[in-house]
Amino acid sequence: MPGITVADQILTGVVACWHAKQLGGAAAKIGDLRRKHEIAPPRTDGPDEFIRALRAQQNCLEFGVTFEIVLWLAGIFGHQVPAAVLGAIFVYSREQYFNGYIQDAEKRIKPFWMGIRALKGLFAVAILGLVNTALVHYAGINVPNMIKDKLF
Amino acid sequence: MPGITVADQILTGVVACWHAKQLGGAAAKIGDLRRKHEIAPPRTDGPDEFIRALRAQQNCLEFGVTFEIVLWLAGIFGHQVPAAVLGAIFVYSREQYFNGYIQDAEKRIKPFWMGIRALKGLFAVAILGLVNTALVHYAGINVPNMIKDKLF
Amino acid sequence: MPGITVADQILTGVVACWHAKQLGGAAAKIGDLRRKHEIAPPRTDGPDEFIRALRAQQNCLEFGVTFEIVLWLAGIFGHQVPAAVLGAIFVYSREQYFNGYIQDAEKRIKPFWMGIRALKGLFAVAILGLVNTALVHYAGINVPNMIKDKLF
Repeated sequence: MPGITVADQILTGVVACWHAKQLGGAAAKIGDLRRKHEIAPPRTDGPDEFIRALRAQQNCLEFGVTFEIVLWLAGIFGHQVPAAVLGAIFVYSREQYFNGYIQDAEKRIKPFWMGIRALKGLFAVAILGLVNTALVHYAGINVPNMIKDKLF
Repeated sequence: MPGITVADQILTGVVACWHAKQLGGAAAKIGDLRRKHEIAPPRTDGPDEFIRALRAQQNCLEFGVTFEIVLWLAGIFGHQVPAAVLGAIFVYSREQYFNGYIQDAEKRIKPFWMGIRALKGLFAVAILGLVNTALVHYAGINVPNMIKDKLF
Repeated sequence: MPGITVADQILTGVVACWHAKQLGGAAAKIGDLRRKHEIAPPRTDGPDEFIRALRAQQNCLEFGVTFEIVLWLAGIFGHQVPAAVLGAIFVYSREQYFNGYIQDAEKRIKPFWMGIRALKGLFAVAILGLVNTALVHYAGINVPNMIKDKLF
């Protein structure tokens, strides 16, 4: 089985980089709101806008860890194209989630569920990729090649 | 030195996938408790059960980041078998921790320390793996091969 | 394009291992302060020292996720040497940040900004690495080799 090459994961890498920038941007936004409302760390109470932003950031962190795991499993064991497409949908949905939540708690709901669907898709690609890799390696059965042979 | 192949990390990947599912499940449980006790986001106060669940999730997130780092270092620089075994013990202990903590703060203690032991084991495998890789690459000394030659 | 080998990422791995140890150490410090001030989980209120430590840990977690993403993108798509140097500066700055913050909220500021600069450097290396990999793979243009040929 050939080694993993960096060229196989360029798209996954671009999406991960965008995600890292988003998490950094969320932290910067909290800093801005701390200055705007004069809330010095380590205080975490404040006006509703600040409370919502803190929760939005925390939620992005929670889901961000799960996302990075399945993004890379999907990209490496599955294929970078579905991983990067679903990953980009996830990061975009989280952009809408974070900005929406700061304005109004209701506005977080729609992008939240869009993100969940993208995450479920990544789980599916990751699991299919793991199963396929195991079949090739342990049983010598290559289902994708068998499908290609049938079709072409 | 040969490249890393996906086949070498199937077991590590399966454990990481289980861990990602666990973190997603913890977030879903918080959502269920929010609905049960009618606690609309961004509120974080509520009955004891909800407070305990929030802390349990936060603790799983904190340890989850450390875990993913050492799981993959152990798997890639060391070997996937000890990494996946210790990783599975960790994820299992965290399952017990999260469910126990929600019922009663005391019930978090035993699985917590089981998880810590698994994490320390992963650190050991990661460090041994890094040292071995450095010895092979920079000094041309392959300790595992020397041991094999002595034994067989 | 050749596969990624473990030898290419020893330094990145050492820095990631140090970072994992730091995150584990921060969690242990919170445990120590809980015992010192007799604050049983799931409580999160307490004396100022404890509140500052909790925030310091939370901030290290937030930035730790972003850091791990760009550290590995920089190491794998760029090169392990700049990734590990900037990574070591980041982890060192976070050591100062965490210990400083627990003593006095003011003492967190200088190391915080040192960490931000290291993180921006890692983003730069990650992006340059991704662009270079894409140019080599999709356009057959190898800028580093062109520079080497000009110089030597």
